[in-house]
Amino acid sequence: MPKARLEAFADGIFAIAATLLILNVTVVDGHAVGPELLRIWPSYVAYAVSFITLGIIWINHHLVMHQVSHVDRTFLLLNVLFLMVIAFIPFPTRLLSLYITTGDAQAAALAYGVTLTVTAILFNALWRYAAFGRRLIRADAEARVVDGISRSYLPGPIIYFVATVVALISPRVSAGLYLLIALFYVLESSVFGRA
Amino acid sequence: MPKARLEAFADGIFAIAATLLILNVTVVDGHAVGPELLRIWPSYVAYAVSFITLGIIWINHHLVMHQVSHVDRTFLLLNVLFLMVIAFIPFPTRLLSLYITTGDAQAAALAYGVTLTVTAILFNALWRYAAFGRRLIRADAEARVVDGISRSYLPGPIIYFVATVVALISPRVSAGLYLLIALFYVLESSVFGRA
Amino acid sequence: MPKARLEAFADGIFAIAATLLILNVTVVDGHAVGPELLRIWPSYVAYAVSFITLGIIWINHHLVMHQVSHVDRTFLLLNVLFLMVIAFIPFPTRLLSLYITTGDAQAAALAYGVTLTVTAILFNALWRYAAFGRRLIRADAEARVVDGISRSYLPGPIIYFVATVVALISPRVSAGLYLLIALFYVLESSVFGRA
Amino acid sequence: MPKARLEAFADGIFAIAATLLILNVTVVDGHAVGPELLRIWPSYVAYAVSFITLGIIWINHHLVMHQVSHVDRTFLLLNVLFLMVIAFIPFPTRLLSLYITTGDAQAAALAYGVTLTVTAILFNALWRYAAFGRRLIRADAEARVVDGISRSYLPGPIIYFVATVVALISPRVSAGLYLLIALFYVLESSVFGRA
Repeated sequence: MPKARLEAFADGIFAIAATLLILNVTVVDGHAVGPELLRIWPSYVAYAVSFITLGIIWINHHLVMHQVSHVDRTFLLLNVLFLMVIAFIPFPTRLLSLYITTGDAQAAALAYGVTLTVTAILFNALWRYAAFGRRLIRADAEARVVDGISRSYLPGPIIYFVATVVALISPRVSAGLYLLIALFYVLESSVFGRA
Repeated sequence: MPKARLEAFADGIFAIAATLLILNVTVVDGHAVGPELLRIWPSYVAYAVSFITLGIIWINHHLVMHQVSHVDRTFLLLNVLFLMVIAFIPFPTRLLSLYITTGDAQAAALAYGVTLTVTAILFNALWRYAAFGRRLIRADAEARVVDGISRSYLPGPIIYFVATVVALISPRVSAGLYLLIALFYVLESSVFGRA
Repeated sequence: MPKARLEAFADGIFAIAATLLILNVTVVDGHAVGPELLRIWPSYVAYAVSFITLGIIWINHHLVMHQVSHVDRTFLLLNVLFLMVIAFIPFPTRLLSLYITTGDAQAAALAYGVTLTVTAILFNALWRYAAFGRRLIRADAEARVVDGISRSYLPGPIIYFVATVVALISPRVSAGLYLLIALFYVLESSVFGRA
Repeated sequence: MPKARLEAFADGIFAIAATLLILNVTVVDGHAVGPELLRIWPSYVAYAVSFITLGIIWINHHLVMHQVSHVDRTFLLLNVLFLMVIAFIPFPTRLLSLYITTGDAQAAALAYGVTLTVTAILFNALWRYAAFGRRLIRADAEARVVDGISRSYLPGPIIYFVATVVALISPRVSAGLYLLIALFYVLESSVFGRA
């Protein structure tokens, strides 16, 4: 089974989920637009954090597919589940945009964190299914690279789980952590990219 | 006529329809967000059932196109009709999300069931048009595989028709059946995938 | 300049415009859903007519690109203008859905007709720019096929212009004509496809 | 790392952002549709300006990728940032559509101008990262073409910055400039395309 259509489908989901995020950036009609554009700053930050996070996950999905030589139906289904969570991200992003500065901040930060934690878990599951016994890995893939990917994806679920739990104490610190995680991955990737 | 652009177009419709499903997951502004996130549980289930169902149909469309060597205009038009129903799925999904726990549950469950039944019928029509006398089938496709596909798609319309009729007696049982059908296809595919 | 990315971009616009049409199918919250699902029948018809129309135009764009060997910047820009009108179609479709059974039927039918007439004109411009002196046509394209395409696209703008003018007398007859035009192209294409 | 998936992802973002622009074209329900269709003329102009601008940027992204032989992670991340701003464009377009004829015109024109200025800066950054020392450039790319691209992208940020600053004096002149810039690039490209 060729992997090209899976890549096309995944690229589509990533691109649409990322572009739909802009629907969460809105001003309230009837208020002066200038002050509204300042008041809604959390929706810009939430947009940027989710867009960059989706971009980083997309780049990593790209790296995974580059190591994979073929796909089977179980891998396709794991991808469908993974993409289901990817396409879900605009919803908790909306909650963060609207409520992080209100009394509902905790519910919003928890919803965001749970979604990202599940995303990280499914991404690990996806990769580990492909990599286990080199089930779907290209014959010419280097063991060093495959093992490096396995190691580099392990911390994701733990980091997002911790940031989610922090929301129980302080939703705003939790939201700050989501931003820091995105920035960390951007910097780490850039450094890695120059290696 | 090459089949690559049809695949790209179909992948686009599937990916967009699946991603638009998230627009059906919404909290009512002005209520406390925490309780709202619990109250809207049917919209999570409806999102998951429709996303997985779309994913399974997409995988099967993938399998069909893999057996097809070329496309003609009638096949293209059958695909347009089929994709028209695929892109319709977010609407009855929204109805299920909003109304399955209300007095309008029956109308919502019927709308969902009719849409999925028509989807299954058109998918059969699509495949049978291609497979009849091996009209559009690859010269090297095995008769065993082609006949296996033909058999495996037959029950779809009947199963969805039955689940739809059940809505006349109990909309919630009907909704549960839509969930079970999706789960069945996930499991069956996984097992098949490991064969 | 390769034509593959133009095809990908065009396929994306067609797929997204077609899928966004479903956002025009909505029930009014607070009314009984069953009767609402019957009351909004014009939105189903409008959805189907626009989806099929977009599908047919997409198939024809496919045919045009099949005759084209390469693209230049003017052709790219004509495509951008053409796709701008394609992506506009969900708006007059929404007007037809909401207003064809009301006192605003005429404005809705005119808006739809003008959009489709401009679409047909731009599609002709696109093809004629490519075909003029065989500017962008494949070296091995048959003159008979190229001339056949040129002839077959000529009536489109006229047919849609007439259906638009009819809206000045009877918006509902005009809407019926948009449906008939879509059906005609479906049937004509099927017949042609079997030739 | 192959560049094909980046192109697919970018094409997706461009196509979706352009198609979502139509959601900004709306009539107010309950008013007569005919007069409403005339009243909302700024939303048609804003739709056209943003669609054409996105189309021109997409064509130029196409040209850049044509000169690039491969991508690294830093280039991927620059693309994610660039596409983040591309996907943002529907929001200030909505502001222009709704407010350019009201007392909120200045805030709308500034928001649009800042977005386009940042877009032009990131597009330059993207190209310059690839072109610096011919880091990612094809071995057979002509120095004349590469230098020509570098020169031709320089004025973009300055032009948009000036048009943005003009909004401080006259938002409507500023909006007119956004239209003129789009028209200029269309004409310049057409002329260049015929060369």
